[in-house]
Amino acid sequence: MSKSKSNGKPVVGVDLGGTKILAAVVNKEGKLLSRAKKSTKADKDPDQVLDRICLVIREAVEEADLTINDIAAIGAGSPGPLDPETGIIIVAPNLGWKNVDLKGKLEGEFKLPTFIDNDVNVGTLGEHRLGAGKGVANLIGIFVGTGIGGGIIIDNKLYTGFNKTAGEVGHIILQPKDGPKCGCGNIGCMEALASRTAIDRMIREQLDNGKKSVITSLLKDKNARIKSGVLRDAMEHDDKVVSKALKKATYYLGVGVAGLINLLSPEMIILGGGVVEAMPDFFTSEVEKVAVKHSFPNASKNVRFVPARLGDDAGVLGAAVMAQMKM
Amino acid sequence: MSKSKSNGKPVVGVDLGGTKILAAVVNKEGKLLSRAKKSTKADKDPDQVLDRICLVIREAVEEADLTINDIAAIGAGSPGPLDPETGIIIVAPNLGWKNVDLKGKLEGEFKLPTFIDNDVNVGTLGEHRLGAGKGVANLIGIFVGTGIGGGIIIDNKLYTGFNKTAGEVGHIILQPKDGPKCGCGNIGCMEALASRTAIDRMIREQLDNGKKSVITSLLKDKNARIKSGVLRDAMEHDDKVVSKALKKATYYLGVGVAGLINLLSPEMIILGGGVVEAMPDFFTSEVEKVAVKHSFPNASKNVRFVPARLGDDAGVLGAAVMAQMKM
Repeated sequence: MSKSKSNGKPVVGVDLGGTKILAAVVNKEGKLLSRAKKSTKADKDPDQVLDRICLVIREAVEEADLTINDIAAIGAGSPGPLDPETGIIIVAPNLGWKNVDLKGKLEGEFKLPTFIDNDVNVGTLGEHRLGAGKGVANLIGIFVGTGIGGGIIIDNKLYTGFNKTAGEVGHIILQPKDGPKCGCGNIGCMEALASRTAIDRMIREQLDNGKKSVITSLLKDKNARIKSGVLRDAMEHDDKVVSKALKKATYYLGVGVAGLINLLSPEMIILGGGVVEAMPDFFTSEVEKVAVKHSFPNASKNVRFVPARLGDDAGVLGAAVMAQMKM
Repeated sequence: MSKSKSNGKPVVGVDLGGTKILAAVVNKEGKLLSRAKKSTKADKDPDQVLDRICLVIREAVEEADLTINDIAAIGAGSPGPLDPETGIIIVAPNLGWKNVDLKGKLEGEFKLPTFIDNDVNVGTLGEHRLGAGKGVANLIGIFVGTGIGGGIIIDNKLYTGFNKTAGEVGHIILQPKDGPKCGCGNIGCMEALASRTAIDRMIREQLDNGKKSVITSLLKDKNARIKSGVLRDAMEHDDKVVSKALKKATYYLGVGVAGLINLLSPEMIILGGGVVEAMPDFFTSEVEKVAVKHSFPNASKNVRFVPARLGDDAGVLGAAVMAQMKM
């Protein structure tokens, strides 16, 4: 695209998820001027989902009392793996996508420079520029939800590496011999031991073994997935089953983070995602305790463990920041 | 120090180890002009070892038909943890050192700008600039010996992170629940599962269980540590006990490297250290097989697994390169 600089124009940030699409207009100071949101309808075919993304972008622009001509660029965070150079989503299981040209679609529709990256990379960038990690040159963002994603900031830049795939903190391997199977096909990844999905499994294993828990009364349907808010409510009831599962999850998160500290010597660990947002103090303090215990004292010295600060806005803000940096 | 540039003068690189001290004079093209070597005598007190280091430096300079006035700077790789800014070795168990001012001693003695870093960081830098990793922007060096050390090159620079301690690949944790105890105090670090020390332990466990091995005849003293050359000889005899131990070690190395690939997306994995140097093809091919199997295909795509190329010279060459870069 020929446009090279924003001349102070705002950009649009898009956060594409398996259940919802968010878009926001963001000015050059990183302020949100508007938000828009739609369900993804991932069961429809990719062309229809792409059209919905365009619709949400138009809504966000209209909501900010602007037109597309007032916008300098578009940034979008998407599930991956994806290729940030071509903007093609290689595989996105949550969306049922394979080789979908997200960048091409948006550039064709809006004639604006468009930049695509991994959703958690973009979320980490948002936290680094506008959230918990402002001014911190080297940090790791870890987002705990259905899976575990992350991003790495090195020397104030998002680090993506040789194949542009870096940051998969959920897939460092902590129990290769006899751990639970991970969604990625491997055994004993951190994601298989500490994600909300893993916590759900650990709770149900205890229930199946006859343990009593308030979870059974908190869940309307006993087969429904256990949401983060339900976990928090159970913890407020001092529920032993949930507490045991969360202690296990934070133990594995802490051990994984210890390895990351020994390996990368970050200044800050940012913990985010739905589960952490429901219990930010519990998660950060438990993970810090385990991580400091299992890492070198000179590597963990003065490392800060903090909860993410931007919540649901991390994705759109990070995508907007990415667009501002790259255009 | 006031001297800022070499004006083409050579530098001295020092490699300080628990058993020997190496020094070399290296010109600005990275060519070795001379080498010198002495035993460390780590049982003596630090002042005496420091004097021996100075002696080896003088010998290397004399061997190159030069005087100290012809030298632009000194770089030294040392066991750590250490502080590269102050040049103080915080703790070096192999040397029995605590808070030893290596930089201060060398600067006082030679009045030359002096730069200190971790021995494996420096070795990785050597391989990056002059060895197997020439021209590769993002790589990880893993050195398997008594322990497992490593270094990380990001965007053509040695990455040291917030606390200047990054690169401890040996202390990512692969079996926290029931793994063997590591020298660092933790459970299940890669070093405790895949170093020469771990291989030694796995062999002796099998011997204690009555398994037969050529190792017993290859070792003059059955309690002597099993050197890398002995492991290679046993493999050449198709020894099942040694083969089983090496397969386990390369499995854990491979799983650890898989996590590193998912996390950092390096372009190259360089494997070095005594054990690997004794069997470079076996180690690189086994580690590659396991690592590719356990990492994302799009992250492991085109990643090269190569043996280190500089052997014993990696330390002195890397230290010299570091001095050239920093002065």
